[in-house]
Amino acid sequence: MANDKGFTLWFTGLSGAGKTTISKIVEEELRARRSRLEILDGDVVRENLSKGLGFSKEDRDTNIRRIAFVADLLSRNGVPVITAAISPYREIRDEARETMGDRFIEVFVKASVEVCADRDVKGLYAKAFSGEIKEFTGVSDPYEEPLSPEIVLETETETPEESAGRLIALLEERQLIPAAQPA
Amino acid sequence: MANDKGFTLWFTGLSGAGKTTISKIVEEELRARRSRLEILDGDVVRENLSKGLGFSKEDRDTNIRRIAFVADLLSRNGVPVITAAISPYREIRDEARETMGDRFIEVFVKASVEVCADRDVKGLYAKAFSGEIKEFTGVSDPYEEPLSPEIVLETETETPEESAGRLIALLEERQLIPAAQPA
Repeated sequence: MANDKGFTLWFTGLSGAGKTTISKIVEEELRARRSRLEILDGDVVRENLSKGLGFSKEDRDTNIRRIAFVADLLSRNGVPVITAAISPYREIRDEARETMGDRFIEVFVKASVEVCADRDVKGLYAKAFSGEIKEFTGVSDPYEEPLSPEIVLETETETPEESAGRLIALLEERQLIPAAQPA
Repeated sequence: MANDKGFTLWFTGLSGAGKTTISKIVEEELRARRSRLEILDGDVVRENLSKGLGFSKEDRDTNIRRIAFVADLLSRNGVPVITAAISPYREIRDEARETMGDRFIEVFVKASVEVCADRDVKGLYAKAFSGEIKEFTGVSDPYEEPLSPEIVLETETETPEESAGRLIALLEERQLIPAAQPA
C-alpha cells in the first residue's frame, strides 16, 4: 500500500537555490494526499541534534550524517521524509544514499552562484562576499554538484510550482505516493 | 488499528539494573507480534547523534534530549520505540514526557546501587569505586528516581522474564500492541 512506502526527498543545493520554497510546495501537496510526513529542516536539526556544531567541513559532515541517520530511521518505517539542508559534500550524500538504498531520492535544486547571489533573499551572499560570513557555500566554501541525482530542478528557468510539479510526478510514477484525487 | 499506535518505552535505571536485558526480551516479544519497532540504544545514539559529548550533567542532558527528539519523531508516526539509556535526571525525562504526552511510557528498572554493584557485569562499578571512572551514576553522580513512572520493574526480586511479562501485559491492557496469537 502506498501509505507504507517510506522515502527521503534529499534536497541539495546552494543557499537561495530554492530548496525551502520548493520543499514547502511539495510538503503541502503530500500532506493533501497522505497523513504521514516529516520535514527535517536544517535549522530545526541544528537546534535539536547538532547544537554546538559549526560550519567547518567536519562539523557540516557530522550534521548531515545526523540528518541521514534520522531520515533513515523514519523512512525505513514507512514515513516519507523531506530534508532540505545544503549538504555540499558529495561523499556524505553518497553515504546517505548507501544507507537508504532506493528510499533515497536526491533532488538537486540547481541555480548558479550568480543567480542565487542576485536573489539574495536573506542578505547572506552580500555578507559572504564582504567576508562578514566565513565558510559560505558557493562563495568561500565548496559545493559539489550531484553526479547522478534522481531529479534536477532547474530553478533558473522553472517556477517553484513547475519544479515541485515535476518532483511530484516522479513520486507518482514510482508509485511512492497515491495519485491525486479527481477534483 | 493497533499497528498504528506509536509509543516510547522509556527505560530508566542504574547501570546494571537490567534495562538492556529486559528491553531485549520485550523487543523479541514485540517483533513477534508486529513488524515496526526501533531500538534507540544508548551506545548507538552516542555514536550517531552525540559523538563528542561527555558525561557532565550538561552533556548527558543534551544526549537524552536528542534521544527524546528522535523517539518523538518516530512514535508520532506510529512507530513503537524502546530507549534504554540511564537518563538519570528527572527534569529531562519529564521534558520528554511533556513532548510525547501519553505516548511516553516511563519504565523504571529498579535495583539498589548495592545490588547493581554486586552484579557488576561489565566491571564498571569496581572502576567507579576506585575512582578510575569519574561521574558514574549512582556512585559519583546522581540518579533521580522517577516519581510516578508508568511501571516499576523490581529486578531485585523478579526475573527479567517476569519484568518483561508485566510490561507486555501493561501494553496489552492499554491496547498498544496486539494480543499474542494463540499457540
